[in-house]
Amino acid sequence: MSQCVLYHFAFHPASRAARLALGEAKIEYADAPVRPWEADCPLNQFNPSGMPPVIQTSDRGRPLNLCELPAILGWIEDQQRGPLLLPAEAAERAEARRLTGWFDRRFSDDVDAILLHERLEKPLLKLGPPEARALREGREALKEHLIMLEELAGARDWLAGRRLSQADLVAAAHLSILDYFGEITWTHWPALKTWYSKLKSRPCFRPLLADRFIGVPPASWYADLDF
Amino acid sequence: MSQCVLYHFAFHPASRAARLALGEAKIEYADAPVRPWEADCPLNQFNPSGMPPVIQTSDRGRPLNLCELPAILGWIEDQQRGPLLLPAEAAERAEARRLTGWFDRRFSDDVDAILLHERLEKPLLKLGPPEARALREGREALKEHLIMLEELAGARDWLAGRRLSQADLVAAAHLSILDYFGEITWTHWPALKTWYSKLKSRPCFRPLLADRFIGVPPASWYADLDF
Repeated sequence: MSQCVLYHFAFHPASRAARLALGEAKIEYADAPVRPWEADCPLNQFNPSGMPPVIQTSDRGRPLNLCELPAILGWIEDQQRGPLLLPAEAAERAEARRLTGWFDRRFSDDVDAILLHERLEKPLLKLGPPEARALREGREALKEHLIMLEELAGARDWLAGRRLSQADLVAAAHLSILDYFGEITWTHWPALKTWYSKLKSRPCFRPLLADRFIGVPPASWYADLDF
Repeated sequence: MSQCVLYHFAFHPASRAARLALGEAKIEYADAPVRPWEADCPLNQFNPSGMPPVIQTSDRGRPLNLCELPAILGWIEDQQRGPLLLPAEAAERAEARRLTGWFDRRFSDDVDAILLHERLEKPLLKLGPPEARALREGREALKEHLIMLEELAGARDWLAGRRLSQADLVAAAHLSILDYFGEITWTHWPALKTWYSKLKSRPCFRPLLADRFIGVPPASWYADLDF
Protein backbone atom coordinates (compact mmCIF):
# COMPACT_ATOMS: atom_id res chain seq x y z
CA MET A 1 0.00 0.00 0.00
CA SER A 2 1.28 3.44 -0.98
CA GLN A 3 1.70 6.24 1.53
CA CYS A 4 -1.43 8.21 2.14
CA VAL A 5 -1.80 11.75 3.54
CA LEU A 6 -5.24 13.00 4.55
CA TYR A 7 -5.87 16.76 4.60
CA HIS A 8 -8.85 17.32 6.82
CA PHE A 9 -10.49 19.59 9.36
CA ALA A 10 -11.62 17.79 12.51
CA PHE A 11 -15.03 19.52 12.74
CA HIS A 12 -15.96 19.31 9.06
CA PRO A 13 -18.53 16.56 8.36
CA ALA A 14 -17.07 15.30 5.06
CA SER A 15 -13.58 15.26 6.60
CA ARG A 16 -14.89 13.13 9.47
CA ALA A 17 -16.62 10.77 7.03
CA ALA A 18 -13.33 10.32 5.17
CA ARG A 19 -11.55 9.41 8.43
CA LEU A 20 -14.28 6.90 9.33
CA ALA A 21 -14.15 5.30 5.89
CA LEU A 22 -10.34 5.04 5.97
CA GLY A 23 -10.66 3.49 9.42
CA GLU A 24 -13.26 0.93 8.28
CA ALA A 25 -11.03 0.03 5.32
CA LYS A 26 -7.99 -0.22 7.65
CA ILE A 27 -6.03 2.14 5.42
CA GLU A 28 -3.27 3.85 7.37
CA TYR A 29 -2.74 7.51 6.73
CA ALA A 30 -0.76 10.50 7.93
CA ASP A 31 -2.85 13.28 9.43
CA ALA A 32 -2.58 16.72 7.81
CA PRO A 33 -5.01 19.02 9.61
CA VAL A 34 -5.95 22.14 7.62
CA ARG A 35 -7.89 25.32 8.30
CA PRO A 36 -9.77 25.75 4.99
CA TRP A 37 -11.00 29.25 5.81
CA GLU A 38 -7.43 30.63 5.92
CA ALA A 39 -6.05 32.25 2.76
CA ASP A 40 -2.83 30.21 2.85
CA CYS A 41 -4.54 26.82 3.31
CA PRO A 42 -2.39 24.34 1.33
CA LEU A 43 -5.50 22.81 -0.27
CA ASN A 44 -5.87 25.89 -2.47
CA GLN A 45 -2.93 24.52 -4.42
CA PHE A 46 -4.40 21.16 -5.32
CA ASN A 47 -8.16 21.25 -4.96
CA PRO A 48 -9.97 23.90 -7.07
CA SER A 49 -12.66 24.24 -4.39
CA GLY A 50 -10.02 24.68 -1.66
CA MET A 51 -11.99 22.30 0.56
CA PRO A 52 -11.07 19.18 2.52
CA PRO A 53 -11.05 16.23 2.64
CA VAL A 54 -8.23 15.57 0.19
CA ILE A 55 -5.96 12.52 0.07
CA GLN A 56 -2.54 12.59 -1.53
CA THR A 57 -1.27 9.15 -2.39
CA SER A 58 0.13 7.41 -5.44
CA ASP A 59 -1.09 4.88 -7.99
CA ARG A 60 1.47 2.70 -9.80
CA GLY A 61 4.24 5.16 -9.02
CA ARG A 62 2.29 8.24 -10.12
CA PRO A 63 0.96 10.85 -7.68
CA LEU A 64 -2.77 10.60 -7.10
CA ASN A 65 -4.92 13.37 -5.58
CA LEU A 66 -8.36 12.40 -4.31
CA CYS A 67 -10.30 15.63 -3.91
CA GLU A 68 -13.37 15.53 -1.68
CA LEU A 69 -15.51 12.83 -0.23
CA PRO A 70 -17.05 11.14 -3.31
CA ALA A 71 -13.57 10.64 -4.82
CA ILE A 72 -12.27 9.29 -1.49
CA LEU A 73 -15.19 6.91 -0.82
CA GLY A 74 -15.12 5.70 -4.43
CA TRP A 75 -11.36 5.11 -4.35
CA ILE A 76 -11.59 3.14 -1.11
CA GLU A 77 -14.39 0.96 -2.52
CA ASP A 78 -12.52 0.45 -5.82
CA GLN A 79 -9.66 -1.16 -3.92
CA GLN A 80 -11.74 -3.69 -1.99
CA ARG A 81 -12.13 -7.31 -3.03
CA GLY A 82 -15.75 -7.31 -1.89
CA PRO A 83 -18.28 -4.65 -0.94
CA LEU A 84 -17.23 -2.58 2.08
CA LEU A 85 -18.74 0.94 2.01
CA LEU A 86 -21.63 -0.12 -0.22
CA PRO A 87 -23.72 -3.23 0.49
CA ALA A 88 -23.84 -6.02 -2.09
CA GLU A 89 -27.59 -5.93 -2.73
CA ALA A 90 -28.95 -3.48 -5.35
CA ALA A 91 -31.70 -1.93 -3.20
CA GLU A 92 -29.33 -1.33 -0.29
CA ARG A 93 -26.70 0.15 -2.60
CA ALA A 94 -29.30 2.57 -3.96
CA GLU A 95 -30.38 3.48 -0.45
CA ALA A 96 -26.79 4.00 0.75
CA ARG A 97 -26.18 6.30 -2.22
CA ARG A 98 -29.45 8.18 -1.70
CA LEU A 99 -28.71 8.80 1.99
CA THR A 100 -25.13 9.89 1.29
CA GLY A 101 -26.55 12.53 -1.07
CA TRP A 102 -29.24 13.44 1.47
CA PHE A 103 -26.60 14.36 4.05
CA ASP A 104 -24.37 16.06 1.52
CA ARG A 105 -27.15 18.42 0.42
CA ARG A 106 -30.28 18.39 2.58
CA PHE A 107 -28.77 17.93 6.01
CA SER A 108 -25.89 20.29 5.16
CA ASP A 109 -28.22 23.01 3.91
CA ASP A 110 -30.96 22.60 6.52
CA VAL A 111 -28.93 21.94 9.66
CA ASP A 112 -25.15 22.35 9.32
CA ALA A 113 -25.40 25.66 7.47
CA ILE A 114 -27.20 27.10 10.48
CA LEU A 115 -26.07 25.21 13.60
CA LEU A 116 -22.43 24.70 12.64
CA HIS A 117 -22.28 28.30 11.48
CA GLU A 118 -23.52 29.52 14.87
CA ARG A 119 -21.57 27.12 17.07
CA LEU A 120 -18.36 26.63 15.12
CA GLU A 121 -17.75 29.13 12.33
CA LYS A 122 -18.64 32.15 14.43
CA PRO A 123 -16.00 31.47 17.11
CA LEU A 124 -13.43 30.40 14.49
CA LEU A 125 -13.94 33.50 12.35
CA LYS A 126 -14.60 35.79 15.32
CA LEU A 127 -18.06 36.72 14.08
CA GLY A 128 -19.56 37.29 17.52
CA PRO A 129 -21.86 35.21 19.71
CA PRO A 130 -24.52 32.82 18.32
CA GLU A 131 -27.97 34.26 17.67
CA ALA A 132 -30.85 32.75 19.63
CA ARG A 133 -33.23 32.87 16.66
CA ALA A 134 -30.81 31.09 14.34
CA LEU A 135 -30.10 28.45 16.98
CA ARG A 136 -33.85 27.81 17.39
CA GLU A 137 -34.32 27.54 13.63
CA GLY A 138 -31.37 25.17 13.27
CA ARG A 139 -32.57 22.99 16.15
CA GLU A 140 -36.05 22.77 14.62
CA ALA A 141 -34.53 21.65 11.32
CA LEU A 142 -32.31 19.12 13.14
CA LYS A 143 -35.37 17.71 14.89
CA GLU A 144 -37.09 17.02 11.55
CA HIS A 145 -34.05 15.11 10.35
CA LEU A 146 -33.76 13.19 13.64
CA ILE A 147 -37.42 12.11 13.35
CA MET A 148 -36.64 10.68 9.92
CA LEU A 149 -33.42 9.01 11.11
CA GLU A 150 -35.11 7.55 14.22
CA GLU A 151 -37.63 5.90 11.90
CA LEU A 152 -34.89 4.44 9.68
CA ALA A 153 -32.86 3.26 12.67
CA GLY A 154 -35.94 1.62 14.20
CA ALA A 155 -36.81 -0.26 11.01
CA ARG A 156 -33.36 -1.42 9.92
CA ASP A 157 -30.09 -2.76 11.33
CA TRP A 158 -28.16 0.05 9.66
CA LEU A 159 -29.44 3.17 7.89
CA ALA A 160 -29.45 1.67 4.39
CA GLY A 161 -30.54 -1.84 5.39
CA ARG A 162 -28.92 -4.94 6.84
CA ARG A 163 -25.32 -3.92 6.21
CA LEU A 164 -23.18 -1.10 7.51
CA SER A 165 -22.53 1.30 4.63
CA GLN A 166 -21.10 4.69 3.81
CA ALA A 167 -24.53 6.14 4.68
CA ASP A 168 -23.91 5.25 8.34
CA LEU A 169 -20.44 6.78 8.27
CA VAL A 170 -21.62 9.99 6.62
CA ALA A 171 -24.60 10.30 8.98
CA ALA A 172 -22.41 9.66 12.03
CA ALA A 173 -19.88 12.19 10.77
CA HIS A 174 -22.53 14.93 10.73
CA LEU A 175 -24.23 13.89 13.97
CA SER A 176 -20.99 13.47 15.92
CA ILE A 177 -20.05 17.12 15.39
CA LEU A 178 -23.47 18.28 16.59
CA ASP A 179 -23.09 15.86 19.50
CA TYR A 180 -19.77 17.43 20.47
CA PHE A 181 -21.62 20.73 20.90
CA GLY A 182 -24.35 19.03 22.94
CA GLU A 183 -27.03 19.48 20.26
CA ILE A 184 -28.41 15.92 20.42
CA THR A 185 -30.51 14.68 23.34
CA TRP A 186 -30.09 10.96 22.78
CA THR A 187 -32.81 9.89 25.22
CA HIS A 188 -35.38 11.34 22.79
CA TRP A 189 -34.17 9.07 19.98
CA PRO A 190 -33.79 5.54 21.42
CA ALA A 191 -33.37 3.61 18.14
CA LEU A 192 -30.95 6.17 16.78
CA LYS A 193 -29.04 6.03 20.06
CA THR A 194 -28.62 2.26 19.70
CA TRP A 195 -27.41 2.77 16.12
CA TYR A 196 -24.99 5.51 17.21
CA SER A 197 -23.61 3.50 20.08
CA LYS A 198 -22.85 0.60 17.72
CA LEU A 199 -20.91 2.98 15.49
CA LYS A 200 -19.22 4.79 18.34
CA SER A 201 -17.77 1.48 19.60
CA ARG A 202 -16.07 0.70 16.30
CA PRO A 203 -12.30 1.29 16.14
CA CYS A 204 -12.76 3.74 13.24
CA PHE A 205 -14.56 6.12 15.63
CA ARG A 206 -11.80 6.35 18.23
CA PRO A 207 -9.79 9.22 16.64
CA LEU A 208 -12.93 11.36 16.33
CA LEU A 209 -13.72 11.00 20.01
CA ALA A 210 -10.31 12.49 20.83
CA ASP A 211 -10.92 15.66 18.75
CA ARG A 212 -11.11 18.88 20.74
CA PHE A 213 -12.42 22.27 19.63
CA ILE A 214 -10.39 25.13 21.10
CA GLY A 215 -12.34 26.96 23.79
CA VAL A 216 -15.31 24.57 23.78
CA PRO A 217 -15.08 21.33 25.77
CA PRO A 218 -17.21 18.49 24.37
CA ALA A 219 -20.60 17.53 25.81
CA SER A 220 -19.93 15.37 28.86
CA TRP A 221 -21.13 12.21 27.06
CA TYR A 222 -19.33 12.92 23.77
CA ALA A 223 -16.48 10.45 24.16
CA ASP A 224 -18.36 8.06 26.46
CA LEU A 225 -19.11 4.70 24.82
CA ASP A 226 -21.81 4.05 27.41
CA PHE A 227 -23.68 7.34 27.07
CA MET B 1 -33.44 -6.39 -18.71
CA SER B 2 -36.31 -5.41 -16.39
CA GLN B 3 -38.71 -2.64 -17.25
CA CYS B 4 -37.53 0.79 -16.25
CA VAL B 5 -39.55 3.97 -15.63
CA LEU B 6 -37.76 7.29 -15.27
CA TYR B 7 -39.48 10.08 -13.35
CA HIS B 8 -37.85 13.30 -14.44
CA PHE B 9 -38.35 16.97 -15.21
CA ALA B 10 -36.95 18.03 -18.58
CA PHE B 11 -35.32 21.26 -17.32
CA HIS B 12 -33.81 19.85 -14.12
CA PRO B 13 -30.03 19.28 -14.41
CA ALA B 14 -29.86 15.98 -12.49
CA SER B 15 -32.86 14.65 -14.43
CA ARG B 16 -31.08 15.46 -17.69
CA ALA B 17 -27.90 13.78 -16.47
CA ALA B 18 -29.90 10.63 -15.70
CA ARG B 19 -31.35 10.60 -19.24
CA LEU B 20 -27.89 11.06 -20.75
CA ALA B 21 -26.44 8.26 -18.62
CA LEU B 22 -29.28 5.87 -19.49
CA GLY B 23 -28.74 6.78 -23.13
CA GLU B 24 -24.99 6.11 -22.96
CA ALA B 25 -25.69 2.76 -21.29
CA LYS B 26 -28.34 1.95 -23.93
CA ILE B 27 -30.89 1.21 -21.22
CA GLU B 28 -34.41 1.64 -22.52
CA TYR B 29 -36.88 3.37 -20.26
CA ALA B 30 -40.40 4.71 -20.17
CA ASP B 31 -40.67 8.47 -19.73
CA ALA B 32 -42.61 9.71 -16.69
CA PRO B 33 -42.37 13.50 -16.67
CA VAL B 34 -43.10 15.06 -13.26
CA ARG B 35 -43.56 18.59 -11.93
CA PRO B 36 -41.75 18.36 -8.57
CA TRP B 37 -43.00 21.73 -7.32
CA GLU B 38 -46.64 20.56 -7.37
CA ALA B 39 -48.11 19.22 -4.13
CA ASP B 40 -49.47 16.06 -5.77
CA CYS B 41 -46.21 15.12 -7.53
CA PRO B 42 -46.10 11.30 -7.44
CA LEU B 43 -42.47 11.35 -6.28
CA ASN B 44 -43.61 12.47 -2.83
CA GLN B 45 -44.76 8.89 -2.36
CA PHE B 46 -41.47 7.16 -2.97
CA ASN B 47 -38.62 9.62 -2.58
CA PRO B 48 -38.38 11.33 0.83
CA SER B 49 -36.93 14.46 -0.79
CA GLY B 50 -39.74 14.53 -3.36
CA MET B 51 -37.20 15.26 -6.09
CA PRO B 52 -36.43 13.69 -9.47
CA PRO B 53 -34.73 11.83 -11.02
CA VAL B 54 -36.14 8.54 -9.76
CA ILE B 55 -36.11 5.18 -11.56
CA GLN B 56 -38.58 2.44 -10.76
CA THR B 57 -37.40 -0.95 -11.94
CA SER B 58 -36.92 -4.39 -10.44
CA ASP B 59 -34.05 -6.54 -9.29
CA ARG B 60 -34.44 -10.34 -9.27
CA GLY B 61 -38.20 -9.99 -9.22
CA ARG B 62 -38.30 -7.42 -6.42
CA PRO B 63 -39.23 -3.77 -7.00
CA LEU B 64 -36.24 -1.44 -6.95
CA ASN B 65 -36.43 2.35 -6.51
CA LEU B 66 -33.40 4.37 -7.46
CA CYS B 67 -33.83 7.78 -5.86
CA GLU B 68 -31.74 10.62 -7.29
CA LEU B 69 -28.71 10.87 -9.46
CA PRO B 70 -25.96 9.18 -7.39
CA ALA B 71 -28.14 6.06 -6.99
CA ILE B 72 -28.95 6.06 -10.72
CA LEU B 73 -25.37 6.60 -11.92
CA GLY B 74 -24.08 3.99 -9.47
CA TRP B 75 -26.71 1.43 -10.48
CA ILE B 76 -25.93 1.91 -14.18
CA GLU B 77 -22.21 1.47 -13.55
CA ASP B 78 -22.80 -1.59 -11.32
CA GLN B 79 -24.45 -3.36 -14.24
CA GLN B 80 -21.66 -2.83 -16.76
CA ARG B 81 -19.03 -5.42 -17.58
CA GLY B 82 -16.38 -2.74 -17.91
CA PRO B 83 -16.11 0.94 -16.98
CA LEU B 84 -18.70 3.13 -18.71
CA LEU B 85 -19.55 6.22 -16.66
CA LEU B 86 -16.25 6.17 -14.76
CA PRO B 87 -12.90 5.76 -16.54
CA ALA B 88 -10.71 2.77 -15.69
CA GLU B 89 -7.70 4.73 -14.45
CA ALA B 90 -7.62 5.80 -10.77
CA ALA B 91 -6.71 9.48 -11.34
CA GLU B 92 -9.44 9.89 -13.95
CA ARG B 93 -12.00 8.17 -11.73
CA ALA B 94 -11.15 10.57 -8.91
CA GLU B 95 -11.43 13.52 -11.27
CA ALA B 96 -14.78 12.33 -12.66
CA ARG B 97 -16.10 11.99 -9.11
CA ARG B 98 -14.71 15.37 -8.06
CA LEU B 99 -16.31 17.15 -11.02
CA THR B 100 -19.66 15.40 -10.51
CA GLY B 101 -19.68 16.77 -6.96
CA TRP B 102 -18.54 20.18 -8.20
CA PHE B 103 -21.61 20.50 -10.41
CA ASP B 104 -23.93 19.04 -7.80
CA ARG B 105 -22.91 21.64 -5.22
CA ARG B 106 -20.82 24.53 -6.52
CA PHE B 107 -22.34 25.01 -9.94
CA SER B 108 -25.86 24.44 -8.56
CA ASP B 109 -25.39 26.94 -5.75
CA ASP B 110 -23.44 29.58 -7.69
CA VAL B 111 -25.22 29.49 -11.05
CA ASP B 112 -28.40 27.36 -11.22
CA ALA B 113 -29.82 28.72 -7.97
CA ILE B 114 -29.78 32.20 -9.51
CA LEU B 115 -30.09 31.85 -13.30
CA LEU B 116 -32.51 28.90 -13.38
CA HIS B 117 -34.54 30.57 -10.65
CA GLU B 118 -34.88 33.74 -12.72
CA ARG B 119 -35.37 32.14 -16.14
CA LEU B 120 -37.28 28.97 -15.28
CA GLU B 121 -38.75 28.85 -11.75
CA LYS B 122 -40.19 32.36 -11.92
CA PRO B 123 -42.35 31.66 -15.00
CA LEU B 124 -43.28 28.17 -13.73
CA LEU B 125 -44.32 29.39 -10.29
CA LYS B 126 -45.67 32.73 -11.59
CA LEU B 127 -43.26 34.74 -9.46
CA GLY B 128 -43.04 37.69 -11.84
CA PRO B 129 -40.37 38.78 -14.35
CA PRO B 130 -36.64 38.14 -13.87
CA GLU B 131 -34.64 40.78 -12.02
CA ALA B 132 -31.83 42.47 -13.90
CA ARG B 133 -29.50 42.48 -10.91
CA ALA B 134 -29.93 38.76 -10.23
CA LEU B 135 -29.41 37.95 -13.91
CA ARG B 136 -26.17 39.95 -13.90
CA GLU B 137 -24.97 38.21 -10.75
CA GLY B 138 -25.83 34.76 -12.13
CA ARG B 139 -24.12 35.48 -15.43
CA GLU B 140 -20.97 36.66 -13.63
CA ALA B 141 -20.93 33.41 -11.63
CA LEU B 142 -21.52 31.37 -14.80
CA LYS B 143 -18.58 33.14 -16.46
CA GLU B 144 -16.22 32.07 -13.65
CA HIS B 145 -17.29 28.45 -14.09
CA LEU B 146 -16.98 28.67 -17.89
CA ILE B 147 -13.41 29.99 -17.54
CA MET B 148 -12.57 26.93 -15.45
CA LEU B 149 -14.33 24.54 -17.85
CA GLU B 150 -12.69 26.13 -20.92
CA GLU B 151 -9.31 25.43 -19.31
CA LEU B 152 -10.22 21.79 -18.64
CA ALA B 153 -11.68 21.29 -22.12
CA GLY B 154 -8.54 22.80 -23.68
CA ALA B 155 -6.19 20.55 -21.73
CA ARG B 156 -8.03 17.22 -21.99
CA ASP B 157 -10.06 15.14 -24.43
CA TRP B 158 -12.94 14.99 -21.95
CA LEU B 159 -13.46 16.86 -18.69
CA ALA B 160 -11.96 14.19 -16.44
CA GLY B 161 -9.22 13.06 -18.83
CA ARG B 162 -8.91 10.85 -21.87
CA ARG B 163 -12.25 9.06 -21.48
CA LEU B 164 -15.83 10.24 -21.58
CA SER B 165 -17.25 10.01 -18.05
CA GLN B 166 -20.23 10.93 -15.93
CA ALA B 167 -18.52 14.30 -15.35
CA ASP B 168 -19.13 15.17 -19.02
CA LEU B 169 -22.76 14.08 -18.82
CA VAL B 170 -23.42 16.01 -15.63
CA ALA B 171 -21.67 19.13 -16.95
CA ALA B 172 -23.56 18.94 -20.25
CA ALA B 173 -26.84 18.44 -18.39
CA HIS B 174 -26.35 21.74 -16.54
CA LEU B 175 -24.97 23.68 -19.50
CA SER B 176 -27.61 22.45 -21.95
CA ILE B 177 -30.42 23.99 -19.88
CA LEU B 178 -28.62 27.33 -19.72
CA ASP B 179 -27.99 26.99 -23.46
CA TYR B 180 -31.72 26.51 -24.11
CA PHE B 181 -32.27 29.93 -22.52
CA GLY B 182 -29.48 31.47 -24.61
CA GLU B 183 -27.16 31.99 -21.64
CA ILE B 184 -23.99 30.62 -23.28
CA THR B 185 -22.14 32.49 -26.02
CA TRP B 186 -20.18 29.59 -27.42
CA THR B 187 -17.83 31.70 -29.58
CA HIS B 188 -16.22 32.94 -26.34
CA TRP B 189 -15.34 29.39 -25.27
CA PRO B 190 -13.82 27.60 -28.28
CA ALA B 191 -12.42 24.52 -26.51
CA LEU B 192 -15.62 24.06 -24.52
CA LYS B 193 -17.63 24.46 -27.73
CA THR B 194 -15.66 21.62 -29.35
CA TRP B 195 -16.28 19.47 -26.26
CA TYR B 196 -20.01 20.34 -26.25
CA SER B 197 -20.42 19.66 -29.96
CA LYS B 198 -18.89 16.18 -29.49
CA LEU B 199 -21.44 15.46 -26.75
CA LYS B 200 -24.34 17.04 -28.61
CA SER B 201 -23.76 14.69 -31.56
CA ARG B 202 -24.06 11.56 -29.44
CA PRO B 203 -27.34 9.63 -29.66
CA CYS B 204 -27.92 10.06 -25.90
CA PHE B 205 -28.32 13.80 -26.44
CA ARG B 206 -31.09 13.63 -29.03
CA PRO B 207 -34.08 13.50 -26.64
CA LEU B 208 -32.80 16.56 -24.76
CA LEU B 209 -32.63 18.61 -27.94
CA ALA B 210 -36.34 17.95 -28.50
CA ASP B 211 -37.35 19.33 -25.06
CA ARG B 212 -39.45 22.49 -25.13
CA PHE B 213 -40.22 24.89 -22.29
CA ILE B 214 -43.75 26.27 -22.50
CA GLY B 215 -43.76 29.89 -23.55
CA VAL B 216 -40.02 30.11 -24.20
CA PRO B 217 -38.65 28.87 -27.51
CA PRO B 218 -35.04 27.60 -27.33
CA ALA B 219 -32.07 29.70 -28.45
CA SER B 220 -31.86 29.43 -32.25
CA TRP B 221 -28.73 27.22 -32.04
CA TYR B 222 -29.98 24.99 -29.20
CA ALA B 223 -30.85 21.93 -31.26
CA ASP B 224 -28.37 22.62 -34.06
CA LEU B 225 -25.52 20.10 -34.18
CA ASP B 226 -23.45 22.54 -36.24
CA PHE B 227 -23.87 25.60 -33.99
